[in-house]
Order: sequence, then C-alpha cells, then structure tokens
Amino acid sequence: MFHHHNLKKFLPSIPMLEWGRRYDRETLVSDLVAALIVTVMLIPQSLAYALLAGLPPEVGLYASVAPLVLYAIFGTSRVLAVGPVAVVSLMTAAAIGEHAAIGTPAYGAFAITLAFMSGVILLLMGFLRLGFLAHFLSHPVISGFISASGLLIAASQIKTLMGVDVQGHNFIDLVASLAQQIPHVHLLTLAMGVGSTGFLFWVRKGLKPLLMRLGFQSRSADVLAKTGPVAAIVVTSYLTWAFQWQLQGVKIVGAVPQGLPPLTLPLWDMALWKTLAVPALLISVVGFVESVSVGQTLAAKRRQRIAPNQELVALGASNVSAALTGGFPVTGGFARSVVNFDAGAKTPAAGIFTALGITLASLFLTPALYFLPQATLAATIVVAVLSLVDFRIFKRTWGYSKADFVAVLATLLVTLTSGVELGLVTGVGVSLALYLYRTSRPHIAEVGLVPGTEHFRNIMRHEVGTQPTVLGLRVDESLYFANSRALEDHVNESVASHPQLAHVVLQCSAINSIDASALESLEAIDSRLRASGILLHLSEVKGPVMDRLKHTHFLRDLSGKVYLTHFQAVQDLSSST
Amino acid sequence: MFHHHNLKKFLPSIPMLEWGRRYDRETLVSDLVAALIVTVMLIPQSLAYALLAGLPPEVGLYASVAPLVLYAIFGTSRVLAVGPVAVVSLMTAAAIGEHAAIGTPAYGAFAITLAFMSGVILLLMGFLRLGFLAHFLSHPVISGFISASGLLIAASQIKTLMGVDVQGHNFIDLVASLAQQIPHVHLLTLAMGVGSTGFLFWVRKGLKPLLMRLGFQSRSADVLAKTGPVAAIVVTSYLTWAFQWQLQGVKIVGAVPQGLPPLTLPLWDMALWKTLAVPALLISVVGFVESVSVGQTLAAKRRQRIAPNQELVALGASNVSAALTGGFPVTGGFARSVVNFDAGAKTPAAGIFTALGITLASLFLTPALYFLPQATLAATIVVAVLSLVDFRIFKRTWGYSKADFVAVLATLLVTLTSGVELGLVTGVGVSLALYLYRTSRPHIAEVGLVPGTEHFRNIMRHEVGTQPTVLGLRVDESLYFANSRALEDHVNESVASHPQLAHVVLQCSAINSIDASALESLEAIDSRLRASGILLHLSEVKGPVMDRLKHTHFLRDLSGKVYLTHFQAVQDLSSST
Repeated sequence: MFHHHNLKKFLPSIPMLEWGRRYDRETLVSDLVAALIVTVMLIPQSLAYALLAGLPPEVGLYASVAPLVLYAIFGTSRVLAVGPVAVVSLMTAAAIGEHAAIGTPAYGAFAITLAFMSGVILLLMGFLRLGFLAHFLSHPVISGFISASGLLIAASQIKTLMGVDVQGHNFIDLVASLAQQIPHVHLLTLAMGVGSTGFLFWVRKGLKPLLMRLGFQSRSADVLAKTGPVAAIVVTSYLTWAFQWQLQGVKIVGAVPQGLPPLTLPLWDMALWKTLAVPALLISVVGFVESVSVGQTLAAKRRQRIAPNQELVALGASNVSAALTGGFPVTGGFARSVVNFDAGAKTPAAGIFTALGITLASLFLTPALYFLPQATLAATIVVAVLSLVDFRIFKRTWGYSKADFVAVLATLLVTLTSGVELGLVTGVGVSLALYLYRTSRPHIAEVGLVPGTEHFRNIMRHEVGTQPTVLGLRVDESLYFANSRALEDHVNESVASHPQLAHVVLQCSAINSIDASALESLEAIDSRLRASGILLHLSEVKGPVMDRLKHTHFLRDLSGKVYLTHFQAVQDLSSST
Repeated sequence: MFHHHNLKKFLPSIPMLEWGRRYDRETLVSDLVAALIVTVMLIPQSLAYALLAGLPPEVGLYASVAPLVLYAIFGTSRVLAVGPVAVVSLMTAAAIGEHAAIGTPAYGAFAITLAFMSGVILLLMGFLRLGFLAHFLSHPVISGFISASGLLIAASQIKTLMGVDVQGHNFIDLVASLAQQIPHVHLLTLAMGVGSTGFLFWVRKGLKPLLMRLGFQSRSADVLAKTGPVAAIVVTSYLTWAFQWQLQGVKIVGAVPQGLPPLTLPLWDMALWKTLAVPALLISVVGFVESVSVGQTLAAKRRQRIAPNQELVALGASNVSAALTGGFPVTGGFARSVVNFDAGAKTPAAGIFTALGITLASLFLTPALYFLPQATLAATIVVAVLSLVDFRIFKRTWGYSKADFVAVLATLLVTLTSGVELGLVTGVGVSLALYLYRTSRPHIAEVGLVPGTEHFRNIMRHEVGTQPTVLGLRVDESLYFANSRALEDHVNESVASHPQLAHVVLQCSAINSIDASALESLEAIDSRLRASGILLHLSEVKGPVMDRLKHTHFLRDLSGKVYLTHFQAVQDLSSST
C-alpha cells in the first residue's frame, strides 16, 4: 500500500522512487502487455480528440507522449493513463475558439498556452494543498456536466458524420443547423460514418459476448473489444484508398507530419493570459476531478490509495510538459485507464511504455493515416462520449433531494444552451446557493424526554414527556450569520406560546459552530428572555464550540447555566421550580 | 403589538390602516413635536447628502418628501425616518460617477433612474419574500463596510473643508491628493470648516451635559443637541453674508430653486439599466439592511416588531416615489430615526408631518440657504460619518472567530482601496467562502460513554468508556458534497487503527441533512467496511434526515441497523459480540 502520509509532508514527492525500487521482470511483462494494448487504443483516440479540440491530428499524438512520462514519475495512481480526453478537448475548443480561427498558427499557440497555464494552476493548487477545492463540485453536478458535454460533443461530430459544414455555439443551434443541412448530406460520408458508428456500438455490446463464446476470458474479451476502433480505422482507410473516395468528396485526415513531438513554448502575453485565466482554471478543476475519480475508483479495487494533492502536482507537470512538446490540455482519461487496469498494468511504467509506443507511431505510422476518413474519427468520438450520457441521475436526485435535482438540471441546461464554462460555474453556484439557503433556514425542534431513557427527541415525532416551565429547543444547524436571525425569531415565537415558561434550554448537540453574528444573536436572545423573567440555558455544547465561547463574556453574562447533558438540565430545572 | 402574521399572508398590506384607525389627539401632538424636530435636523442633512451624492442640494430636499409619505403608508416601523443617508449617497456617487460628469443633466437623470431601479428591486424582493437574503450580510461584514464607508466619506469631504479641488477614487488616492494640496489650502474656508467641525463635535459630546446642567431632561437634551448643525448653518451663513466671504473665495451653496419637488421619470434605456443593475442591487441590499437594523433596534425598545418582507415593499415604494419626484436613492437613516424616536414619535404620521415640513422648507426656505458655505455642510457630513467608524469589531472578532476577523478585514481593505461596491461583494464572498471551507472539513469525534449516564462524548475531552469491537463516531456537520469525501477518509483511517473492530456506529445527532453526494459516500463506506467484515450502523438519526433516507435503498442495503439512541446501539452491539 502506498504511503501517502509521507507525501503529505514532502511535496512534491516522487512516487516513482517508491515503486521503481521493487520493479522486477514479472511486473515488466505485465506493464509491457498493458502498454501495447493501450497504445493501440490511444492512437485513434488521440487523433480524434485533437480534431475535437480544433487542432491538427498529430497534436493528439504529441499530447500523449511527455504527459504520460511525467505522470508516471509524479502520479500516485498505478494505472491512470493521461492524455487528451473528450470533455477537456471540448473545453479547450470553447476557450480558444472565441479568440482564434481553427487552422491558424495562433490557434495552436493558444492551445499550448492554455495547457501551460492549466499546468501552472494545477501545480500551484498542489503546492498550496488546494485539492479539497474539487470537493465543491458535487457528484450530481459533475454527472450533469459530463452528460451535457457528451451531448454537445456528439452534436458537434454529427456534421463530420454527415459530411456537411455547420456552425453552432450551443446544442440547440447545432441541432437546428444540422436539421437545415440534411438536404446537403454527403451520402458516401454518411454511409461510412453511420457504418462505423454502428460497428463501434456493436463492438461495445456484441463483440465481448462473441469473443467469450469463442473461448476468450471475460477480461481479455473486454480488452480486445476496446481495440474495435482500430479495426474501423483500418477498414475505412483501406476502402477509401482502394476506391479513392477522397476524390468523391470524402474528407480524409491527409498528410500528417512525421517526427518526434516538437519543442514549443507558451506565448508570454499578459492580455492573452488574462483572457484564458478562467477557462484554464475550469479546465484544471474539471481535469483534476475527472482524473481523481478515475484514479480513486481503480485504486480502491486493489486496496490502494491515491493522494489528491500529489495528483495535482503530477497533472500539473503533465500539462506543462504537454505545453513544451506541442500538445494541448490533458488529464487522466476514464476509458484508457480502465483498459490499462484490465490489461494488467502493475506500475506507472506501463505509461512510459505507452509513451514509447505513441512516439514510434508518430515517427513511422503517420503516413498510414493519410486515407483515414474524418467520419471514422467522428464515429469514434460519438460512441465514446454517448457512454458518458447518463440521465438516471435525474431520477435518483428527484426522489432523494430536490436541491440536488435542481443543481443537475441547471448544470445540464446551461451547459447545453450556453456552453461548458458557464454550465460548470452555474452548477457549482447553484449547488452552493441551495446549500446556503438550506442552512439559512434551520430546522428547530421542541424536544421532550423519551420515557425510560435519558434521551430527548422532537415532540412532533415521538411520544415524549415535557414540562410547562421548561422549554427544550434543539437547533439542527450550526449557528452563523445567515441563520442566527431565524433562531431569534423562533425563540420569540416559542416563548409567546408557552405562558408558564421559566427556563429555555437550547440543546446544542447539533450546533457545530457559532460565529460572531450568531453570538450576538444569542446575547440578544438572552437579554430579551431575561427581560421577560425567563432564564436561558445551554446543554450538550460541543467541545470545539465551548472552547471558543470560553474566550467571550457570553458564558459569564448568561442568565442560566451550561449543562453537560440535556437530561441533567431538565432534571435540575424542573426540581428547582 | 403589530400583527405581522397577517402581513405574511397578504402582501402588500397597508399598515397605515391599522394605526390610522386608533389615531387620537394625544398621538397627534406627540407626532407633531417629533416631526418639527426631525424637520429641523433633516434640512441640513438632506442638503449635505445630496452634495455627497454629487447632486444639487435641493435634490436632497426632494428626496425627503414623497419617500417619507410612502414609508408612512407601507412601513411596519413606527419611527423609521426615510431619506438620503450617507452610505447610500456615497454608493450613488460611485455608481453614477463612472458614467456621467457631476453637474450635468445626465448625472441627475441617472440618479433618478438608479432610485427607480432600486425601488423596483426592493419591491420585487418584497413580493418574492426575499428579505432573508439580507441575512447573508454578516454583522462583522456590515460593521467593516460601514466603518470603511465612513472613512471614505470623511476623506472625500476634507477637500471641501480645505477649499481645494482633488480627485480620487479610493481612500489612498484621496489622502495622497489631499496631502499634495496642503500648500493651496484656502485659509478662510479651512478656518470655517475646522471651526464648524470642532463645534459639531463639541455639540455631540459637550452640549448635552451643558443642557442637563441648565435643567433640561436627558432625553430633551439629547434631542436639542441633535439640532446643533442648524446652529452651525445659521451662524456661518450669517457671517458669510455679513462679510461677503463668497467674494474672497469661500464656496457657497448659491441659488437653490424654490418650489415643490418636480415630477420626473427614469430613463428607459436598456444599456443604462444593464450598467446600473449591480450597483442598484447593492444599494438596495445595503439600504435594506441599514434600514431594517435601525427599525428592529428601535422596535425592540417598545416591544414592537417589524416585518422584513413588508419593509422591502415600503422601501421599494419610497425609492420609486423618490424617482418620480426628482430625488435619488433613499433608505431609513439611523440618526434621524433615533431623534424621531427620542422626540416621542408614536406613529408613522410623524413622517408625513416631517414631509410637510420639508415641503414648506423647499417652498420658502431655499433663498435663506444662498450664503450657506459648502464647508459647513462638509463639516456636518464628517461629524456624522465619523461616528459610524468603529474598529472595536476587529478586537472582538480576533478574539472569538478568526474567520469573521478575516471577513471584516477584507471588507474594510477592499472598500478603502477599490470602492464600496467591490468591498461589499468581497465581504459577502469571503464570509461565505470561509463558512463553506469550515463545513468542508468537519470535526469528527470518537465518542465513549460518560460513566453513570447514557450520554456519549468525545474520548479526547472526557473520561469515557469505550470497547475494542465497537467504534462510535460523531460527525459534527451536516453531510454534503463538500465534506462527504472527508468522512470517507476519516472512517478509513479510524478502521485501520482499530484492529479488533466489528461495528462502526455513526452517531448522527449533529447531522442535519445528507445530500445525494453524501449518500453515495455512505454507501461507499458501507460497502468498504462490509468487505473488511465490519458492519456500519447509524444512531440518533434525526427525523427530517430519516424521512429522506426512507426514500432510498440505503437503509435496506445497510449492513447494520439504525438505533434510536447511541446508548441502545452500544448496549446491543457489545452484548452481541
């Protein structure tokens, strides 16, 4: 098991030193096999995601070399595979598309700058131990965001499948433009696009059972099924070459430069950095969240752990390296990491071997990509992203928590209509606002004694005993500025409805903190009760809360006492009156 | 006592119908006396705050007529006096100053539009029952904001006291420019300005004791002392007239048009509305908070209550009326409301009488203001706002709550360096962020039985009994997306350090809600524990939390049980193992 406690103390640590020391031949073989399979899977993915980001296809290969090595050195997950991923590619296109035209040198330079900024942000977050910030993206918001991004990406690829040209900045525009273009569909392209899509869906659902019937084991069948896109690429490239379909209007990838990833530098332009700051931050956070969830899911299966703050450092280094080698923003991808895991990768060395594989591909394989139809790559993307779309979250949150439901819905709708950046910000904003709204209206229960115990519960829900002179109130929320006024109002109203009252006891078992505003409110409540001849007591005040109250005049000035248990308070006060 | 429960049902209600029915001669006399005193006090204040807002002095009078009447009809405070106030005037100047030059017709039209927008926002908030939004401004943030605004206002008036002309958009710029202008001071203006300031400070501190020694009662002495500014105005106006100081460079108010407030309309310009939207919102919220705190403080003294949502409607109507009668944004002011209260106002009719008084002043008194030196008005403002500056909040929050301290400090610094709008937004943002940060790292205590009771407390703080097979954990925070991961980590670590463990019991007495993300985390904890042969139980789950869990599979799939009390859980589980 990985010693993440040490990591906490020495940042950045180099986990590679840990697993590298125990590396042996058996591990090497496992890692090499996994690397081979991931390489085969990664080549079409890298090309496709580069096109999705609006970049030349070879950039996808470049972004799958150095980042893998850097992650292998600094990362804490044993199996995470870093590189271009769908959602981050879409966010990259959205961020740059506003400021440069696709195909221009500026566009590529902006992508490099964005990767660099994202890397710096991730490194800073790692050094400042800000990994916890990712927790503010709730599961439902992430789920809604990923589904909406999947729909957006799929819609953006359909034009390539249809062989038409449409523009659209949001889902509705895209779908509307596509509908208008139906008469202009390029039938040959469409046939190949739909054929590839159908084949790839079949590969997902039907190939594995077939392979298992042919005698493959479940896991091997899984892994083999994941290489289906390669088959689609080989077949459609061959057909296009054989029938020279590019002369009939089928768009092909064309000449892809051969060679090692180039050495590049980001643009040092403050105005550009300012423009890209927010997108870079969002890309960093989304990339981090996606990567960490994949890493944690896979680590848990082998009872390993990952260290989120160290992951920030590793992803930061990966993105900086992507920027220095002609790439674009990268992160840990779900599908390829699962394949890596299932193919038996034991250490991050598998990532280094995969990087070698991709390097060989970019040195020698690119001429073979000349006749690859763009529609095949689009089919690859569509099939990959549609598996991200999952609307069950709506049903689940509707039944359990309306606030979560509203947050998912807002995220989905705003992402579809106004783009990924605004969608994500809206999701976080709405979920935080709803949380704050809830805490601003605390549940306050009048409590009574459960007969035969020393336990107090809500008089509205349980058969409990109460007394006319002692009112027990349990506030089910920490007291802070947004809800302290509500407590004042509630106490005032409760007192008005209990004419014989001599004591109010606030049972503080659910009060986890009291801020300065709430302290003022408690003082106000005490002085108002005192004016009516009623004493205010506290019971079951927690240690951390008590520690802070001791620094104030409040406890000294309080008209009543502080009791360890609510039971003691009620016994003491009912005997005294 | 005011029946605010009825108000809740029928918005907008007209509280005037309530107090109007019981109006009698005695009340009339009290209200008339109070109105006379408030009128005398309000005239110089209105002029001064109009100048502070960058508007001609008569606009201050216009803004003190219709709003008072509208508030009297719709307001729920018996004594609140509505009109121009220092902080809102400063915010008005900040909002308009960027888009129009002082003295131009556009500036005045923008002020009218701003008042109209602010009125509409307040009315909307009232109809939508959004009064609770004001609670998100914590007491410390308000305190820091008011102090910083006081300093800003005082700094902005010193140029008038010195008879120089300086520009500056923040406190540091202002002070620096003032220092540079020292050689160009107009000595006669300075003498009069400093003299007036000194006199007004003496009136605050020294006049009341003097009057009491002369036989006045404490309260009458208080009220008389509040009319000190009128004396300063009369004396300096007389001196200026007598010696014709305006010819020697003393700036005077000059010709103020005589007549009733004009009928005006806001500009219907969408671009302008967009620009002013955020300032109008901030002015509305600040005005509402200031007004409600004054209203609540004074209402409590007479055991009356005010209804915040109805107050929004009343202030909204006041601001709309200000916009229709040539005014600018208004709200309930502290000093004048206290004077109204101390002078014995019994009903809002006093406000209507004050409005009549101001109308008479704007009809007949304006020629008398011709020779009024601007330095005297500046002195009035300086003395009024310096009483708002109170740095004790720093000491109080430092000792009690560092988060509150940071929020006050941020509010103060940003307000001084970057203006009122950014300062306020920063204050709210910082205080919410710190609250969220705290809730994202919950306090989790291992609990044991307090001997001789059924009560469980933190094993680190109390002498309690525990068992090796049963681990009791109390989470001191509601579980939601930002902290559910922290709980997972904590449970994992606790389990690792308790080798004999067979049961984990989460004592849920402080868990006030569990959102969808946290529910997923609980499921993950349960399945991970189950894999290690440990059962997960819950105890003391609150009613509202239980209601929602019942809608899910969680309780059915839970490896352990749900106990009413933690004591029962521990008894049951320790006997079973």
